[in-house]
Amino acid sequence: MTDPPFDDPPRLPAGFRCASIHCGIKPSGGDLALFASDNPGVAAGVFTKSLVPGAPVVVGRKLIQAGRLQAVVVNSGVSNVGTGADGILRARRMGVAAARALGLAPELVLMSSTGMIGVPLPVERIEGAMSELVAALQNDPMRGAEGIMTTDTHPKAVSLAVGSGALTVVAKGSGMIEPNMATMLCYVMTDLALEQSELDAVLRRVVDDTLNMVSVDTDTSTSDTCVAIANGQSGPVAQAVFETALRVALTRMAEMLARDGEGASRLLRVTVRGAADRGDARRIAKSLVNSPLIKTMVYGGDPNVGRILMAVGKCVDCRVDPDRLVAAISGVTVFGGGGSTDFDESKVRALLGMDPVDLGVELGLGEGEAQAWGCDLTPGYIAENAAYYSS
Amino acid sequence: MTDPPFDDPPRLPAGFRCASIHCGIKPSGGDLALFASDNPGVAAGVFTKSLVPGAPVVVGRKLIQAGRLQAVVVNSGVSNVGTGADGILRARRMGVAAARALGLAPELVLMSSTGMIGVPLPVERIEGAMSELVAALQNDPMRGAEGIMTTDTHPKAVSLAVGSGALTVVAKGSGMIEPNMATMLCYVMTDLALEQSELDAVLRRVVDDTLNMVSVDTDTSTSDTCVAIANGQSGPVAQAVFETALRVALTRMAEMLARDGEGASRLLRVTVRGAADRGDARRIAKSLVNSPLIKTMVYGGDPNVGRILMAVGKCVDCRVDPDRLVAAISGVTVFGGGGSTDFDESKVRALLGMDPVDLGVELGLGEGEAQAWGCDLTPGYIAENAAYYSS
Repeated sequence: MTDPPFDDPPRLPAGFRCASIHCGIKPSGGDLALFASDNPGVAAGVFTKSLVPGAPVVVGRKLIQAGRLQAVVVNSGVSNVGTGADGILRARRMGVAAARALGLAPELVLMSSTGMIGVPLPVERIEGAMSELVAALQNDPMRGAEGIMTTDTHPKAVSLAVGSGALTVVAKGSGMIEPNMATMLCYVMTDLALEQSELDAVLRRVVDDTLNMVSVDTDTSTSDTCVAIANGQSGPVAQAVFETALRVALTRMAEMLARDGEGASRLLRVTVRGAADRGDARRIAKSLVNSPLIKTMVYGGDPNVGRILMAVGKCVDCRVDPDRLVAAISGVTVFGGGGSTDFDESKVRALLGMDPVDLGVELGLGEGEAQAWGCDLTPGYIAENAAYYSS
Repeated sequence: MTDPPFDDPPRLPAGFRCASIHCGIKPSGGDLALFASDNPGVAAGVFTKSLVPGAPVVVGRKLIQAGRLQAVVVNSGVSNVGTGADGILRARRMGVAAARALGLAPELVLMSSTGMIGVPLPVERIEGAMSELVAALQNDPMRGAEGIMTTDTHPKAVSLAVGSGALTVVAKGSGMIEPNMATMLCYVMTDLALEQSELDAVLRRVVDDTLNMVSVDTDTSTSDTCVAIANGQSGPVAQAVFETALRVALTRMAEMLARDGEGASRLLRVTVRGAADRGDARRIAKSLVNSPLIKTMVYGGDPNVGRILMAVGKCVDCRVDPDRLVAAISGVTVFGGGGSTDFDESKVRALLGMDPVDLGVELGLGEGEAQAWGCDLTPGYIAENAAYYSS
């Protein structure tokens, strides 16, 4: 986290504090977190498109319509999904408890839950721990990030200076990740002042190019949530300046999430250029990061060029001309002119063993471009997911 | 292969013979096979939808338009994909060599290739071995099946009596399988007489419900081919009778292909009922067999009901009402009425350890139904695919 423009260590913007504690939902470790501003801010959010969304997503979609939030309360361990009408009540109780402890109106507090599906949320434990949680509020974003982890191997936060203020992103997620609107849980905080409509538009555009292009395993979570709060304490910012900073921060976070994919040993970055349009570029980039044969190729470090052709070819709704297609592995052209190139196999093998691995596809048909982020598929993924209950 | 209505061992219909030999494309084992009728038959075929199809698929699509075939020549080891105009020439040379050795017109011989992508087909070896191959023609379909294997762990053939004749299916495939029009390589032979238009229509309908609903790893092959030849030696058959028999045979073959998926330890069968329409049922069934979290759940034998909800929920273009959704694992209802049922976890754990595992989803919305076939995801899949070059 030492390369510019990121703060090292990450910090929270002015007027924001966070905390995490253990309240007894998980056997050990942080399982309850709070992110709060000193004053209400404008807010925007995007949520999973899953047809079986979690109760906090159902409630959150309504809350965000007002465009104002001051805090987000998050638990890990139980996701409150597949829990019917009772789940909605428990989600609301969780938000009310946080609002009461903070002295806020309930409609200013959004709630998120992540963890096991189909289990009732032990909301009494959350209610009982709320005053302790509020008392623990402090300035280090990594402390808040710790409370929202599930199978993540480390807490994830990035921050950077923007204009007269700062932008901080805290997120979690390492499995059941192929976001369709946002990735797992992601909170964007800034002390800059933006119009709610600006914040909403910028968030949607940037999430679509960053978090929505992350895929660890093609499985879309029922709880994906990305919420942004701007409290305005450090004054205004030009929308374009803020959008650039958010793009930088969420690109970095996309890479952090993909590299920490369940069992992953390496980040896989795919860049598609020259597609007939942006939609084709996105579908082909996703096909490459999602292909089990590409993912095992990266894990094994074997330059099997045919798998790149296969993964492009299976995008049957896209426009592809094999004779124009050029493919590269970490900068070395391996296919072009209608056939495999005479590339240095030992060199490519070495590049496939490094982190990250970059796959590039040039289609030669138009101006469509996209990037996608994924990871290799390893025995660790299977070990972790064959025994989720027992772990 | 002992349960009715299948022949044990499988046999070829009247007038068909097959052979396989080693011609030196693979280091050892059968790598060249021939399936031939004594007389020309009506023929139909379906091929991969991949945008980067193999040369034999490009040539085969043209050959099949005449609706008549007498033989199919197949090599394994090299797929002749990503090989440009030279690949087309080599595919044609392979068919011409077989036609010459059989004394047939070249347009009566279809060719298929399976194996490594992006490598020139060593067609001289095929040409040099053709008289030996023709001399080896005999009546056991398993001998032909042996020559078309790649990562398959065993040869695959089924046959059954139909009306006054017989129907035999020989196929291969265990990885890079999510057919979009056919599965890997599959040859349907019958000594019954059908109109070409009947054979074509029946093949397309049945393949769509059987082979096209198999997925081992979501990766669509560049070579998928399913070709049927009816030589008419045993007289006519009612179309409905033939269609029923073909459905039975290709359902069995779909199960054989999925169970032999790379690294698989168990067959996964998914049945979706009550969908708003057939399209929704098919998408949801495919989502379940393709989900890495479902596949690792089956491997681990852990009844994680939330993953079924997740895999249904991520079909964002389908109609789903979580309150009407009922899900079952091998006959035990695990979700219904908007929440998890109080099922016997140790019983379901035991059922998940058996072969096959059946997942059932009832959506309660309409008449749409579909079945799909897949397998568990195991460390064996990764071991096999992380080192394809080196194996």
